[in-house]
Amino acid sequence: MNLKKIKRAIISVSDKSDLKLILPTLKKFKIEIISSGGTFKKIKKMKYKCIEVSDYTGFSEMLDGRVKTLHPKIHAGILNIRKKSSHKKDLKRQNIPNIDLVIVDLYPFEKNLEKKSKKLIEYIDIGGPTLIRSAAKNFNDVTVISNIKDYLKLSKELRTNKGSTSIKFRKIMSSKAFGLTAYYDSVISNWLNEELNIKFPENETVYGKLIQKLRYGENPHQEGYLYKINNNSEIKKIHGKNLSYNNYTDIYSALSILKTFKGKGTIIIKHGNPCGASEEKNQIDSFDNALMCDPISAFGGIVAINSTVTKKLALKLSKNFFEAIISKDFRTDALKILKKRKNIILIVCKKFDLKNKKHYLFLGNAFLSQNTNEILINNKLRVVTKKKPSPSQLKSLKFAFNICKYVKSNAIVLVNNKSTIGIGAGQPSRLDSCKIASNKAYEFIPEKLTNSVAASDAFFPFPDGIQELVESGVKGIIQPGGSVNDKDIIRAANDAGISMVFTGTRHFKH
Amino acid sequence: MNLKKIKRAIISVSDKSDLKLILPTLKKFKIEIISSGGTFKKIKKMKYKCIEVSDYTGFSEMLDGRVKTLHPKIHAGILNIRKKSSHKKDLKRQNIPNIDLVIVDLYPFEKNLEKKSKKLIEYIDIGGPTLIRSAAKNFNDVTVISNIKDYLKLSKELRTNKGSTSIKFRKIMSSKAFGLTAYYDSVISNWLNEELNIKFPENETVYGKLIQKLRYGENPHQEGYLYKINNNSEIKKIHGKNLSYNNYTDIYSALSILKTFKGKGTIIIKHGNPCGASEEKNQIDSFDNALMCDPISAFGGIVAINSTVTKKLALKLSKNFFEAIISKDFRTDALKILKKRKNIILIVCKKFDLKNKKHYLFLGNAFLSQNTNEILINNKLRVVTKKKPSPSQLKSLKFAFNICKYVKSNAIVLVNNKSTIGIGAGQPSRLDSCKIASNKAYEFIPEKLTNSVAASDAFFPFPDGIQELVESGVKGIIQPGGSVNDKDIIRAANDAGISMVFTGTRHFKH
Repeated sequence: MNLKKIKRAIISVSDKSDLKLILPTLKKFKIEIISSGGTFKKIKKMKYKCIEVSDYTGFSEMLDGRVKTLHPKIHAGILNIRKKSSHKKDLKRQNIPNIDLVIVDLYPFEKNLEKKSKKLIEYIDIGGPTLIRSAAKNFNDVTVISNIKDYLKLSKELRTNKGSTSIKFRKIMSSKAFGLTAYYDSVISNWLNEELNIKFPENETVYGKLIQKLRYGENPHQEGYLYKINNNSEIKKIHGKNLSYNNYTDIYSALSILKTFKGKGTIIIKHGNPCGASEEKNQIDSFDNALMCDPISAFGGIVAINSTVTKKLALKLSKNFFEAIISKDFRTDALKILKKRKNIILIVCKKFDLKNKKHYLFLGNAFLSQNTNEILINNKLRVVTKKKPSPSQLKSLKFAFNICKYVKSNAIVLVNNKSTIGIGAGQPSRLDSCKIASNKAYEFIPEKLTNSVAASDAFFPFPDGIQELVESGVKGIIQPGGSVNDKDIIRAANDAGISMVFTGTRHFKH
Repeated sequence: MNLKKIKRAIISVSDKSDLKLILPTLKKFKIEIISSGGTFKKIKKMKYKCIEVSDYTGFSEMLDGRVKTLHPKIHAGILNIRKKSSHKKDLKRQNIPNIDLVIVDLYPFEKNLEKKSKKLIEYIDIGGPTLIRSAAKNFNDVTVISNIKDYLKLSKELRTNKGSTSIKFRKIMSSKAFGLTAYYDSVISNWLNEELNIKFPENETVYGKLIQKLRYGENPHQEGYLYKINNNSEIKKIHGKNLSYNNYTDIYSALSILKTFKGKGTIIIKHGNPCGASEEKNQIDSFDNALMCDPISAFGGIVAINSTVTKKLALKLSKNFFEAIISKDFRTDALKILKKRKNIILIVCKKFDLKNKKHYLFLGNAFLSQNTNEILINNKLRVVTKKKPSPSQLKSLKFAFNICKYVKSNAIVLVNNKSTIGIGAGQPSRLDSCKIASNKAYEFIPEKLTNSVAASDAFFPFPDGIQELVESGVKGIIQPGGSVNDKDIIRAANDAGISMVFTGTRHFKH
């Protein structure tokens, strides 16, 4: 157990609301309290005994509180190794008593960052992290409480052990303390880097706050948890079972595409890939077209809609089995229809503003950091065939290329107007992706293959893919270009009398 | 510019090797130096003037150096806002001079963690981070140098500005300082969490050290960088061009599979998915079989081999176009052959010990954290058909299920003996994955379809997938089971007279 008696505590907290949970216990075990500023006043007001830090150290608080506890009498009292005789001697010589308990939280930097507070720098706490870190380092002798949620745990621990704490408790509290200081400085560091436009610093830290335990991870034998980095997006579940790991990845994929749409849009996602996408003048057409692209794969998928779901749409939605529906909002009569299915997940998403500039990919003991892929076409489009695309065909081509960006590589997307009619995803061979995309279209909407267009996320290595698409009825192709065989590929398009445009921009996604 | 004159510096560093780069400049501009312990001795030995911290504060160093600089005279000297008259008064009253420059590094905690040092806790620096954070907070007035690599930059800055520093310089140095303290505490926090088996803490931070700028990110218009979390794996490039973002992801996929092999193994990866995998008694058969699975997709792929590449294998390898070859080692004569291609990437990987217990997936403003998927089969295998698999078939089934775990979902893997003969990856419909896998086998090695086995990463929703596989010649199937239609699915297998085993363990991968 390695129980350690607590005789003296230092308390300095921003959030004073729950001090009542801990002060009676400290009093019960005759624990002396040192405090400062607002915390001191609050404790006195609550009629508990308390010594002010400046009286304790003999050094008056200065610089509007910037320097209060940064004093050797405080830190030697915390940091000394109790069983070490040389440390004991040091303390005796300087007449420094032990401090066995540190209850400290930190100035709310992150909250003020979110509020865009002007005096942000004043919220960078110096004394607080130092107290927390001193106590956390010396967990063998000292107890640190860095979270208001742990007051009751401390109270219980002290009552159980008659004024002492166990090593297990101290070590857990120490790990929480370093978790907090790491998180705190990571927020500050990322803020400064963003201010200075430093995207790839030498020492990178990524922080997140635990939001929710998920049903499980990617698979049932894996545990999974959701962490939030910031509050840029607002998705609110209003009905149905808890969101799973795979729900979150699918929702993220859906909303990433949807936020690029200006018209009424529908996206259906299965296993991270879109299996239907459509942008139309009205939400019914949009949904019908998205579903038509692959009604079999859509089964059990996630639907995202960037407009308010009406009763008419709800009736259509309810005729299919979807795991989740995300929408800008739901009309009351629409909700009534959809809620009949107890398990269906309904989510309102009013804002989905992914301002993150970086993306991290974890590979075991390393990670890759890169700019998020925010560009669709870097350069001007270049028409490379004799046949030029018509204005409406050009719109379809751009729509197809945009969807293609969000499909796993190698990706081929067939489009009619502004709706997908065949999606070929995730194949090591581009030709196979062409075949999958055109087979899908043949299967469900062959009539739309005539006058369709195709997009490829990267260049065609050989003309075979072009030929496959042309045979299916494709009349225009959009692709980055840049193959050593571009000449042959352009010739194949010219021979078929179709139009082809080069974007110069590749969109691998893995 | 907001230039700030430096009159007084505090220096306290673990790594004293480069002090010579900065001391002459400090002397030139008559900057007073405060220092302590080993740094003080070193500076004196180098014949520069220096005041010892304890003389400066009037408080002697104690607790074996645990408390040295944690003193208000030091921190008020750093933290005061120079232009604020109340701060000026505070300083005057206490007779505290300004400290304008802080040169501090931190006790090498991470290095000692890697060395498994017994006195690890002694390497948790308290005074150092506090000095760095004080100075970094007050960047408007104070310069902080927290990295030995910045000594020359400081020297140059002081010489350019005649003993002053610009606000831009101070702010950049401040961001580096918080980057360091965040990283430092993240290492400590993650260590403590691991010690206590806390996998999903409330405040999570992930840290990495920048290793290398990559050619570009996932696409040429994205910047990409590699960060290392720890030194668990050793991959060493011995020939060829620099590794790209996509090379790293493919290598990671290849080695993740390869480390599960006991025999001589070959893995070929394209776009993150295996397009050939084989485990055999000798490396030549293993390579031949892996390549045969899909020789077209293998073009431009990554090959990973868990044995030493011989001359014979090198001759075979050199007949194909691979972007990279990763191997346990290369014989000298093998290297000679392979190095003829200037651009081919050759990598030696002696150890690939992914001990990471967690995996993070980034979704813009949030991330998902989960246990890595380290299990293949959680429970006992359950034979559900009348026909029981033979011992050799059972080996094939397990091999197929293991490969399937690393193929993007929905995944179907066809195997003959211990070599893949068809891989269907990344489809929203499981039936499509079945078709892709069997079409591949038909295309390249139809003779091996007879007596083949198949694995599915998740249950079959309907019997159609089973029928598709049976028609192709599959004689045994391994899958998690758990569909509402399992009864029909088992019946389909029984009707076809094949064996089927349930694993109870699903392996989605997205």
